[in-house]
Amino acid sequence: MQVTFEQMWTDLAPVGRSATTGGYHRQPFTAAEREAHAWFLEECARRDLRVESDGFGNVIAWWDAGSGPAVLTGSHLDSVREGGAYDGPLGVVSALAAVDVLRDRGFVPSRPIGVGVFAEEEGSRFPLACLGSRLASGRLDWASARELRDREGVAFGDVVEGGTSDLLRDVDVYVELHVEQGRDLVDRGAAVGVASAIWPHGRYRFDMTGAADHAGTTRMEDRRDPMLTYAMTVLAANKQARVSGQRATFGRVDVDPGSTNGIPSTVTAWMDARASDEPALEALVGDVTRLATERAQRDGTMVAVIAESATPEVRFDAALARRLAGADRPVIPTAAGHDAGILQTAGIPTAMLFVRNPTGVSHSPEEHAETADCLAGVEALADVLADLAGGS
Amino acid sequence: MQVTFEQMWTDLAPVGRSATTGGYHRQPFTAAEREAHAWFLEECARRDLRVESDGFGNVIAWWDAGSGPAVLTGSHLDSVREGGAYDGPLGVVSALAAVDVLRDRGFVPSRPIGVGVFAEEEGSRFPLACLGSRLASGRLDWASARELRDREGVAFGDVVEGGTSDLLRDVDVYVELHVEQGRDLVDRGAAVGVASAIWPHGRYRFDMTGAADHAGTTRMEDRRDPMLTYAMTVLAANKQARVSGQRATFGRVDVDPGSTNGIPSTVTAWMDARASDEPALEALVGDVTRLATERAQRDGTMVAVIAESATPEVRFDAALARRLAGADRPVIPTAAGHDAGILQTAGIPTAMLFVRNPTGVSHSPEEHAETADCLAGVEALADVLADLAGGS
Repeated sequence: MQVTFEQMWTDLAPVGRSATTGGYHRQPFTAAEREAHAWFLEECARRDLRVESDGFGNVIAWWDAGSGPAVLTGSHLDSVREGGAYDGPLGVVSALAAVDVLRDRGFVPSRPIGVGVFAEEEGSRFPLACLGSRLASGRLDWASARELRDREGVAFGDVVEGGTSDLLRDVDVYVELHVEQGRDLVDRGAAVGVASAIWPHGRYRFDMTGAADHAGTTRMEDRRDPMLTYAMTVLAANKQARVSGQRATFGRVDVDPGSTNGIPSTVTAWMDARASDEPALEALVGDVTRLATERAQRDGTMVAVIAESATPEVRFDAALARRLAGADRPVIPTAAGHDAGILQTAGIPTAMLFVRNPTGVSHSPEEHAETADCLAGVEALADVLADLAGGS
Repeated sequence: MQVTFEQMWTDLAPVGRSATTGGYHRQPFTAAEREAHAWFLEECARRDLRVESDGFGNVIAWWDAGSGPAVLTGSHLDSVREGGAYDGPLGVVSALAAVDVLRDRGFVPSRPIGVGVFAEEEGSRFPLACLGSRLASGRLDWASARELRDREGVAFGDVVEGGTSDLLRDVDVYVELHVEQGRDLVDRGAAVGVASAIWPHGRYRFDMTGAADHAGTTRMEDRRDPMLTYAMTVLAANKQARVSGQRATFGRVDVDPGSTNGIPSTVTAWMDARASDEPALEALVGDVTRLATERAQRDGTMVAVIAESATPEVRFDAALARRLAGADRPVIPTAAGHDAGILQTAGIPTAMLFVRNPTGVSHSPEEHAETADCLAGVEALADVLADLAGGS
């Protein structure tokens, strides 16, 4: 019995969803994300797909067929904290539905087709986005990855087996379908688009150190308060990004000791920065660092800035993008990172399909795509797979 | 066998102290604070003091003697997060040592002397400072207190028995010894001082609400980012306090969802504000609220400000202060809240002794007092108790 796109979407919807906010909490290797994973394995079994996994939490479900190098599609099942339903799962559910469409059409592939799920795409638990695809593609080594720690101090090496991955050994093309993050397709009146490139981007940790003291008894002029340095840095980052047409965000901050009646000793904050090209990104991060350092001198505090990750611009395979594009499928850039960007950088020709997002909102419970657009995405993905996997 | 001040101090020193920073973590009803409490009960047993407790975690150890209303001394054993050794414990250890001094002198009190330990003085776990003394003195009712929740969502009503307290029924005077928080006694060259008053102060919660979205794909001009509102509010509070000679501090902030690659939906932050008089405090909080609200309009966010606690100025009993003061014991105000302030407000004539703090630093591992000054504090406290408890 075939399970439709709509039914799969309904089955997956409650997994890791907050009853109060509707936001998703599918951090990698937590109960909710493992439940989503178990759901995926069930759907693969239902379709007689052969599941292969590696020691990093990545999985590919194979439609074994024909011979020669494989065509891979898929996405991820993990979410940001309080995320939306579509970012990741839409690509996985659409890939399974595209397999169903191809089989309904009587299509017989001339080479294998894989449906992949990459681990920790969001970097919402371990502090490196696209962790699974970086490891599977050899862009990151296990010795570095195993030491990455989550907020509770748990090492990545303690939650996965590790080792080496040869999941991608036979893959020579990857197509990832994803909900659009932004309103480009809305403005263009298109249900589905094709990615041209990913903006260069990175996350930068600002360690700001001052001196803990009593909030009541310490005169304002005797303080060395790193919260002031942080506050000015937030405003400086916003302003620099605004005037240069780029993006900078402080979405996470840890304060130590975090007492209401104490001046903090340290503030640790993360800046997400993205720009249309690499010199612009470098200038943005440089400007914010300089302004933070100047303010720190005034506050009597210290600032250290560490690039926890920095991803250069990714230009997707141009020939492949042209093959996917069409009158009703415009080619657009994105400022969001994806596993597809990692695979392209690792030398696997890669393309992305975007499905229209009526509000443009993402990484939020408000994230949305209309079912008709999702089904158009499934058809587009099935067409692409049929084209790439030749066959009949 | 008598246990000296120094020995008691040494015994208590390792309890709840971080091995890496030297800071103390004695949040109420946690293992470390309970260990400090157990230490106190042992010292009371050693001195044949009769221990009486209430359902809020408050304890008084009685030196039963004579008749009539009692003289109470003591302080608290809980600490802020990453606090110092002296804030609280110095008053408890000094009270026990003062009992020893009086007994060594052969002093026989004409009325009972109590050594009290009040629960949750710092408000470092449940969000209301002086929680134990407020409840014991009837300044707060159990119905309100039981609903107070810590950061993990645990209700105060789930960690204590509650009910009503009559611990203070026979107390008609309270003297609390405390390490000075500030450098007033250093500048005056005095080992011990006497408190005149406590500045009015409060903690104000700022709930700032915007809209969660993707940090990469959302254009700067499309954002409703509450982190910007927060940052401007921090700087405005600092500036307003500086120009008016008052105090304002943001030492704690929670960000939801707190993802590196997401614009936050809400920022919740706490302002500690203190001023030399009540109109000045009101003006300070009003100015910061107004500036935060103006900025929120610019950011497309919302701000709500809630006074979680607001403590009016406390003037300690003037006659009592005069009785304690002397040529070498100056009378000084303080900007720090204390259980003594609560008891004074509840109608129990109250005084405070301060012991010199060479750096003035408090609520920090750097908090300090020289042993000679601590011993001078014990002698001063013994003198005060002898004076108040009449006897021979």
